[in-house]
Amino acid sequence: MTAPIFANWLSQTNDVTQIFLGASEDPNLINLAGGLPDPSVWPVAELASLATTAMMDHPDKSLSYSPIPGLSDLRDTVARRFSKDGLTLTRDNVMIVSGGMQALDLIGKVLLDQDDIIAAQSPAYLGAIDAWRPRGPKYRALDLEAQDFDPAPALGGAKFAYTVPNFSNPTGRLVLLAQRHALVQAAYETGTYLVEDDPYGTLYYEGDVLPSMLEISASMYKGPYTGPVIYLGTLSKQLAPGLRIGWVIAAPEVISALVTGKQGGDMCTAGLTQVIANTAITSGLVERILPKILELNKTRRDALCAAMDAYLSDLFQWRVPQGGMFVWATARNPQLNTDRLLRVAIEHGVCISPSSAFDPLGLNHSAIRINFTLNTAQDLAEGIQRLAAATRAVLDTQP
Amino acid sequence: MTAPIFANWLSQTNDVTQIFLGASEDPNLINLAGGLPDPSVWPVAELASLATTAMMDHPDKSLSYSPIPGLSDLRDTVARRFSKDGLTLTRDNVMIVSGGMQALDLIGKVLLDQDDIIAAQSPAYLGAIDAWRPRGPKYRALDLEAQDFDPAPALGGAKFAYTVPNFSNPTGRLVLLAQRHALVQAAYETGTYLVEDDPYGTLYYEGDVLPSMLEISASMYKGPYTGPVIYLGTLSKQLAPGLRIGWVIAAPEVISALVTGKQGGDMCTAGLTQVIANTAITSGLVERILPKILELNKTRRDALCAAMDAYLSDLFQWRVPQGGMFVWATARNPQLNTDRLLRVAIEHGVCISPSSAFDPLGLNHSAIRINFTLNTAQDLAEGIQRLAAATRAVLDTQP
Repeated sequence: MTAPIFANWLSQTNDVTQIFLGASEDPNLINLAGGLPDPSVWPVAELASLATTAMMDHPDKSLSYSPIPGLSDLRDTVARRFSKDGLTLTRDNVMIVSGGMQALDLIGKVLLDQDDIIAAQSPAYLGAIDAWRPRGPKYRALDLEAQDFDPAPALGGAKFAYTVPNFSNPTGRLVLLAQRHALVQAAYETGTYLVEDDPYGTLYYEGDVLPSMLEISASMYKGPYTGPVIYLGTLSKQLAPGLRIGWVIAAPEVISALVTGKQGGDMCTAGLTQVIANTAITSGLVERILPKILELNKTRRDALCAAMDAYLSDLFQWRVPQGGMFVWATARNPQLNTDRLLRVAIEHGVCISPSSAFDPLGLNHSAIRINFTLNTAQDLAEGIQRLAAATRAVLDTQP
Repeated sequence: MTAPIFANWLSQTNDVTQIFLGASEDPNLINLAGGLPDPSVWPVAELASLATTAMMDHPDKSLSYSPIPGLSDLRDTVARRFSKDGLTLTRDNVMIVSGGMQALDLIGKVLLDQDDIIAAQSPAYLGAIDAWRPRGPKYRALDLEAQDFDPAPALGGAKFAYTVPNFSNPTGRLVLLAQRHALVQAAYETGTYLVEDDPYGTLYYEGDVLPSMLEISASMYKGPYTGPVIYLGTLSKQLAPGLRIGWVIAAPEVISALVTGKQGGDMCTAGLTQVIANTAITSGLVERILPKILELNKTRRDALCAAMDAYLSDLFQWRVPQGGMFVWATARNPQLNTDRLLRVAIEHGVCISPSSAFDPLGLNHSAIRINFTLNTAQDLAEGIQRLAAATRAVLDTQP
């Protein structure tokens, strides 16, 4: 038998993700590539207790098919948690998803036809690029470094704009307040949706928390939200990623379309993890563990940046991020190919994410993303020394 | 702002699913529309205990991101459970999915480009039609009622064939042994994949269990499976649907493509429910509760068919299914429109699934699917009387 060929988009995937996922199974490798929290922050005993209570007190909700948009209790909890002066949310503004990743998948499914345009922060989260590839979109870059940032030309005619405004994945960059206002304004002017992907919004290690574009766009009118922002949140970085609980907040007509997408996607999110998530939020557990997460992450960010100052400053340049999980480092030598660096780094016992994975065209080879949340200060320092050695090895043998 | 339009496929959805999902929230309605198991069969206390053990003994597996193809333990368990003489499966033949529905979504994503052909059992499971609509396929019908069933013409040039061989959703029909052999043979001859969707394979109430097409296709050679069947299983009908645990068994290259699809879909299935599922299988819990499920379902099937004999035999005709969850009933009067019947039935306090939902073109209006697993014998009888009244009301006012 000659098997039929797979769909076209599968031939356009880049193997970088598979390489670093594969490498991360080696216990001697220091993995700076992923975006994983440290398991020590998970409140295991409390979650075990919540799981038992969920099952015994709410067997129907835990074990039956859930409503496609999510359990009503959890939708109400998310609506209440994000409502504030000037932002009114009801259950109809909220759906539960199986991790923030599924929200990206559903957004592509319900908004994109072949060759539709996405105006994306550049570089962009590789998971979003993966999620949208099967829909065959084209990309325009939102240049947040431009002096007079005017997103309207990029947004005009696009199906949606995409940003991670708080500590962008991969760059760790904060989208500034004036830029947030400009994006919202441009979304209204051009009639384009604005996808605000916010997994790191609770991870500010210093500085004032900026208002979300969801809030900014709501302040213009009263009543339940009907604006252009599609806001994505998740418990993965606030509680535990294995629960696979995220949410979308948007205008009811957008939620309704996404629910149709989810009906043909996974039907519903697991009831058990939804019940656990709801109690974890309403009981205050999520807020209670946040200071510990912030302290650990901040300490590790500082340890990573100190190691980078000591061992990497002649090879790369970077900005210290005010929050999130990543440092983005650009090679000083434009000849350095970071795809090649990934392969050599793995031989040296360290793994990073190369910039090509964050470029829809796979053409950016000049930078790397380094995670600081998973490893101890000691391992971060050792990993950076290995990375420096690997970088020198690549430069020494550069063709 | 004028919001951008949604993707084209969204305008092709049929509102029947939304109608019956919406109606099912009314507590006075007798819901014969869905495909829900009775919650009384769920081993709640055992599952609560497994959840606690999962969290306390395996916090990393329960709370971290899982490997995209699923936890290795659970993949190994599934491989062992389905291996038998003539069918050798390894971990590389298996991936875990977030319910069987996700497997359908991923199959569409990795196999279909616009206008690609699916050769589908007709009528077909509405969830599969929903899952594949965003990929824009065309359909050819597999006519299992044909005297000399030869599927090769339908399969030639198709990307895959799709069947639910054990007690098909919606018809409750068993694909016969000779037909299974013919389908496997045609898949080999035409180089087409053969999707064997098997949620009801454990739900035989009488008769000999037929070999799966996975087994039939493997018997031709030795070594780990590399044949054309893509087999889908789920715990939804064997344990509890809210866990959202299903699996795909296929050739390693197919699994690998589906894993790339899942990476951009929901990244991974919840760890907690995977650990619970693994222990539920390996501890024998799943096998232990099966007799209870079979007894309950069989009793209810008999109660439904008795009520249909009493109240519905002048209006519809049907075959008593040997297993599964549904009876498919075709109107004796070809003028009866079952989409209209759905609306009138809801007014009469009963809900069924009309045949249009199981036709990719939405044109079949002559039949209904009736579920017998969720309701008591008494409610089944009452529901059928209401349905008979609703049918007469529709026929009396037929234009």
